[in-house]
Amino acid sequence: MYNNDDYDFPRYPHKLVRQQIAETLTAWGMKLEHVEIAADRLIEADLRGVDTHGISMLTSYDDWRKKGWITVGTDVTVVRETPTTAVIDGGGGLGFVPATMGMQKAIEKAKQVGVSCVTVRNSSHFGASGVYALMAAREGLIGFSTTNGFSNSVVPTFGAEGKLSTNPFAFAAPTKRNQLFCLDFATSAVARGKIRNAAIEKRPVPIGWITDASGNPTTDATWYFKGALLTPLGGTRELGSHKGYGLATMVEILSAALSGAELVTDKAVHKGQKGSMQIGHWFMVINPKALMPGGEFESITDDLIDHLHAAKPVDPENPVMVAGEPEEQTIALRMEKGIPVPPGLLGKVQEIAKGCNAPFLLTADKIVKA
Amino acid sequence: MYNNDDYDFPRYPHKLVRQQIAETLTAWGMKLEHVEIAADRLIEADLRGVDTHGISMLTSYDDWRKKGWITVGTDVTVVRETPTTAVIDGGGGLGFVPATMGMQKAIEKAKQVGVSCVTVRNSSHFGASGVYALMAAREGLIGFSTTNGFSNSVVPTFGAEGKLSTNPFAFAAPTKRNQLFCLDFATSAVARGKIRNAAIEKRPVPIGWITDASGNPTTDATWYFKGALLTPLGGTRELGSHKGYGLATMVEILSAALSGAELVTDKAVHKGQKGSMQIGHWFMVINPKALMPGGEFESITDDLIDHLHAAKPVDPENPVMVAGEPEEQTIALRMEKGIPVPPGLLGKVQEIAKGCNAPFLLTADKIVKA
Repeated sequence: MYNNDDYDFPRYPHKLVRQQIAETLTAWGMKLEHVEIAADRLIEADLRGVDTHGISMLTSYDDWRKKGWITVGTDVTVVRETPTTAVIDGGGGLGFVPATMGMQKAIEKAKQVGVSCVTVRNSSHFGASGVYALMAAREGLIGFSTTNGFSNSVVPTFGAEGKLSTNPFAFAAPTKRNQLFCLDFATSAVARGKIRNAAIEKRPVPIGWITDASGNPTTDATWYFKGALLTPLGGTRELGSHKGYGLATMVEILSAALSGAELVTDKAVHKGQKGSMQIGHWFMVINPKALMPGGEFESITDDLIDHLHAAKPVDPENPVMVAGEPEEQTIALRMEKGIPVPPGLLGKVQEIAKGCNAPFLLTADKIVKA
Repeated sequence: MYNNDDYDFPRYPHKLVRQQIAETLTAWGMKLEHVEIAADRLIEADLRGVDTHGISMLTSYDDWRKKGWITVGTDVTVVRETPTTAVIDGGGGLGFVPATMGMQKAIEKAKQVGVSCVTVRNSSHFGASGVYALMAAREGLIGFSTTNGFSNSVVPTFGAEGKLSTNPFAFAAPTKRNQLFCLDFATSAVARGKIRNAAIEKRPVPIGWITDASGNPTTDATWYFKGALLTPLGGTRELGSHKGYGLATMVEILSAALSGAELVTDKAVHKGQKGSMQIGHWFMVINPKALMPGGEFESITDDLIDHLHAAKPVDPENPVMVAGEPEEQTIALRMEKGIPVPPGLLGKVQEIAKGCNAPFLLTADKIVKA
């Protein structure tokens, strides 16, 4: 998974980590019903092992709210709605509430009419994309989820200048006997947060993940703070970077052009005008029963997963897995043993709590014993 | 583009190449109204520079029809239909007709109700995926198109055995002042046909495109005929091959599980039972006017493309392009100068024509003069 489970960090009970998140968001002035939704989405990312998109995001959110880039205590409104579609305005706040409302609307519509598409504008970071796609899969539906971002750190193929965000794409599908299928990935070679987390902890990153500000490959993650550029999925033109670049552009079109959010490629935006990062999200849901009634869809998908599991592995210790399974294994591990919190992050979370008069709960006596 | 324009092959007028395709399909017993559709889709691939999916496919189709894997003179039927969805049965024939009907239905439905999803089962090769997504974009709609395949040549991450096809994914979006956006890619590092074409012409391929049958990297394209394995987009786990593998699995779920086609991972299928390769396709259309009326969608998409064009290039001779633009440049080139046909392929097309009593039209006197 390339996450904090690879290190020997102290672990805290997931309920306590969620409470730390909720106390902090409350102290920042978020509405209480919004705090519950946002804390659920964030702790789900931590449980799934997506360490870039859980409690570690508090450090970025604190920075953005202080700069006035996000409006924490905002309302969420429906701009436009049809039986198959809707557009939601996030009011400049964090993306969790409008994104959750967007996916819920898409789920209701797809149950009624078979297929649906909902977008969100005037939003900001919504956490892990896969969490929304999974909401659909848990209801027996196929879910898609994308978002654009505010940092144009990814270079287009043939380009020497960052233009796109890591624009993640997620897809989830229901199953019966296997784990839900859940694909969730940054369209860059790696997620930005993996570099941020390595930089905070002063760990090197593999060659191919980033370049320095001039476009030269480096293992020094601290370039994260000095203008590192990310390559699109594929890495080089010959090995397919135009595919990752094209996917990132598709995500930008769906998330921004189809919602009325602003483009990450527009350098004038995303810096707090109107108290908003002006980010957009896209959700699409298909009801498989409209096309394949009687459970056939789930049955064929389960067969596919079984066939993939049966593939001869390179190393018998490392069997072939299917998207979403490493995360499910991590949920089981972390429900039992707690969420690993690296020391750099722990210090920042304490500092943030102190700064907004929230209680600091992740004290040494709460560390889960091995 | 890594295609036949990189070589000094003789060029033939596109109308003559289309006629050669149509004469051959007719001689094989395809219904005349089906021939027109199939020839249009195939010559569009040749014009776009997708040399793996145009006239070069006649060599594979001839092989498959002789083996009884496809039923050339078949009918296409609608299995199931709602206002937002449909499932089509391709009758075991080539995929062009059911895929064209599927995308047309999806277009009509999205115009009526905003969003739609249509799948095809019991089909075979449908040519280039992008051609179908573009049908939607030309009507002012967002189009998605995928297909599974019959050859399990792509290894899952951590696997040492081919399990998935190159399962292509296409997405197209309308614009006003720029070319239509059209992303069309194999979810493997490269398309299988690029290796086949190199193998026919005995040209080497770059390291990273294929491995030999034991999983070792090779530049020898003739491994195409001896069990070469393809890597998923991303190439290695550290650089994101799990993303390409996950996308390929998503395409398999959408194309097979959502249509009732058979799984490429099932080794017992795709070898001509019931005169069919049992392949499936998926089409999805979103009407941007349902979410962003008044041309806002196209306007924001055009702005995005303008911003990407403005990115500082690594090499000023090689400006940053957007998905679909290299293909549009190739259309302009080939409309004027003709379709390049390499000698290995030309010989095979002549042999195929002779074998089915179709006229052979691509004679030396028809070569377009430079």
